[in-house]
Amino acid sequence: MTATDKDALVDLLGALAYGELSAFDRLAHDARRAPSLSGRAAMAGMAAVELGHHGSLIDRLRHLGADPEEAMEPFVAALDRFHAKTEPSTWHESLVKAYVGDGLAADFYREVARFVDPSTRELITEVLADSGSAAFAVREVLTATAATPSLSGRLALWGRRLVGEAISQTQHVLAERDALMTLLMSDTGDISGVGTLMTRITDNHARRMTTLGLGG
Amino acid sequence: MTATDKDALVDLLGALAYGELSAFDRLAHDARRAPSLSGRAAMAGMAAVELGHHGSLIDRLRHLGADPEEAMEPFVAALDRFHAKTEPSTWHESLVKAYVGDGLAADFYREVARFVDPSTRELITEVLADSGSAAFAVREVLTATAATPSLSGRLALWGRRLVGEAISQTQHVLAERDALMTLLMSDTGDISGVGTLMTRITDNHARRMTTLGLGG
Repeated sequence: MTATDKDALVDLLGALAYGELSAFDRLAHDARRAPSLSGRAAMAGMAAVELGHHGSLIDRLRHLGADPEEAMEPFVAALDRFHAKTEPSTWHESLVKAYVGDGLAADFYREVARFVDPSTRELITEVLADSGSAAFAVREVLTATAATPSLSGRLALWGRRLVGEAISQTQHVLAERDALMTLLMSDTGDISGVGTLMTRITDNHARRMTTLGLGG
Repeated sequence: MTATDKDALVDLLGALAYGELSAFDRLAHDARRAPSLSGRAAMAGMAAVELGHHGSLIDRLRHLGADPEEAMEPFVAALDRFHAKTEPSTWHESLVKAYVGDGLAADFYREVARFVDPSTRELITEVLADSGSAAFAVREVLTATAATPSLSGRLALWGRRLVGEAISQTQHVLAERDALMTLLMSDTGDISGVGTLMTRITDNHARRMTTLGLGG
């Protein structure tokens, strides 16, 4: 692994680690808006799963000889900004954000997996296998839109706003992290690697919105 | 098990289950005030442990044929009031509350263990074994008061307020739940059973404040 590769790997793991810690925080916060104690516990359960991933990423960073706090630090502002700009105002918006956010995180993990060493790839595979905690969100959104069809349009717009903000904050981060940008351009040798990444992410997002009954 | 015993058991498990869910919520909220990302993750980790206990209690309630939401419902107001009246205003107050709250919960579990069937007792033993997540709070409080001795007096007062509110809300709850009160009086046949329970809890609390360097 070259020094640049190592820098990029630490950046990737740092970004994911803070992503998981901030996801814990936001899911725990949004859980409070649940209309039932079981809904509240289900969203709290998603938060706990994210925190488990955070712990695995921190262990991996330590194993690589990196300081976890230093590795996360460059990504705190962008992720906090993402959450500040996508604060749900209803329980249904919280559910859509939980499901879409979980899916976006999985997309980022999959992208990252192509660039990392075998041990880190194993960790990522484990994290990705640890899914299904967002299934309750899909069920609740489908039930709600079946009962109140007029909800769909508003939630579809909300979904677009979520992915728009995610892409915008990712671009901010990439503009500031040279090693990361170099890594993402390594497939094609130019900026088009970043473009195809964004295309893959928006395609996956569209699929997820369809799963929620909020597509096209 | 008589019908009254069963009612009391469902009450006990319901109270503990909502206690754990609200502890998750408050710890997750207080984690945000941490001065470092590792402190934030440590307190978030405590929250996740409490949520795990919540899940075990819910399973136990279901196994007993009780509706978990109904079982928790009578205790929501008292526990929410406890947290509203003990909202920490600093990170150090959050740490003291995390440690003291975890200890108070353990006390309640131990009291409860004396009254329950063997399977429920096994669950309680498991929950009590699952400790140590508050050790970071003790370390951080000891470090902080060593550096700033004037903190001790204020945090000692804070600890007294926490246990005072816990006892006051417990008494509120007992006054309204006949089956629970009957159970607690079953040792002595009169109200003095409740008095000795409170004495044991305040004694344990005093021990914990000493561990935090805030005793005497």
